[in-house]
Amino acid sequence: MKIQLALDRMAIKEAISITKLVQDSVDWIEVGTSLIKEFGKNSISEIKRSFPNKMVVADIKTIDNAIYEFEMCFNAGADVATVMGVSPIVTIQACLQVAEKWNKKVMIDLLNTSDDQLATLSQFKSAIFCHHVSKDQQELDSSEKSGVRVFTDATPTIAVAGGITLQSIRDLASIRPSVIIIGSAITKANNPTQAAYEFKKTIIELEGQVNE
Amino acid sequence: MKIQLALDRMAIKEAISITKLVQDSVDWIEVGTSLIKEFGKNSISEIKRSFPNKMVVADIKTIDNAIYEFEMCFNAGADVATVMGVSPIVTIQACLQVAEKWNKKVMIDLLNTSDDQLATLSQFKSAIFCHHVSKDQQELDSSEKSGVRVFTDATPTIAVAGGITLQSIRDLASIRPSVIIIGSAITKANNPTQAAYEFKKTIIELEGQVNE
Repeated sequence: MKIQLALDRMAIKEAISITKLVQDSVDWIEVGTSLIKEFGKNSISEIKRSFPNKMVVADIKTIDNAIYEFEMCFNAGADVATVMGVSPIVTIQACLQVAEKWNKKVMIDLLNTSDDQLATLSQFKSAIFCHHVSKDQQELDSSEKSGVRVFTDATPTIAVAGGITLQSIRDLASIRPSVIIIGSAITKANNPTQAAYEFKKTIIELEGQVNE
Repeated sequence: MKIQLALDRMAIKEAISITKLVQDSVDWIEVGTSLIKEFGKNSISEIKRSFPNKMVVADIKTIDNAIYEFEMCFNAGADVATVMGVSPIVTIQACLQVAEKWNKKVMIDLLNTSDDQLATLSQFKSAIFCHHVSKDQQELDSSEKSGVRVFTDATPTIAVAGGITLQSIRDLASIRPSVIIIGSAITKANNPTQAAYEFKKTIIELEGQVNE
């Protein structure tokens, strides 16, 4: 299980400073949608330039204009870019084609996808599927929810996102996600370095249990 | 019927130059998603600063993080901002609340919404509903399609978008959209000033026929 550090709602400089504090404990770095929409593609290129050896995920949340947006992300140095599962299928196919050309990856964000859409999407074996409880669902909706849904098909590469804490990460271990996306539980912690280290330690411990 | 000029896939300077050429024939100016994702919120503020007396639409295509994104757009000078109809309902409600606070408008982009979603969305009477054939559906999908769908409820304020030309605009007149969104048919024309003028003239002519 890899840790993807999600950087959101901050300036690019702050994002780089925080990442420097925690880089030893995280695997992938996500340039959050809020950074891209606030500062543009420079947010991607500056973070990749600062951490050239990390996988950088551009959370561009494409829902149209796939070729233009994915070319932009990969040109800026992203290794993975995201497309919404609720997009027209032609958009998702175009993202996959651009990623294949660049030998990079597509993460499909399953936010608010229907069961029918999920079934259709499962044909895209090369994608990473991100089960996602959105920020608004976490912050503005008091009902209980879980981002994790079961594929009827063979298990693809899975990422999980949305308000993940040291407590909730233990419940996620059973579904064996490849990528665990953590944002404010690290970036807003009093001691981000320590918080990231605790996540890393917990994941190593959980992986040991799963492999036993 | 107002003309909303959609500015996409170009630099901010180019967007401002083209808009100067056509500003007498267009009513609203849309800062396209591609400008926002490429250059950030500056694309909104620079275009509003250049055209302070025009309604500026930020095509931010929010699908999460509604308060942050809508506050950002309105702070940057947008008069209207867009949210995807396929978003969780809590996201759309948050957009409407931010817009109400600012006394500004929400445009709900109906791209790929299901009939059930459309029915639910029709409760939001203050929104502008944008029937939308996406760029990818226009450019990458050869099947015939129309962005226009009928509301079962009372007719709300409607916008239409997606590859609209001087020919297709005549077919749209019968549904009486409040806003007609035109992009490349003006911005990529050999003579944008003339193209915008032809659209304006056609709309005035069509409005005359509708009112007869």
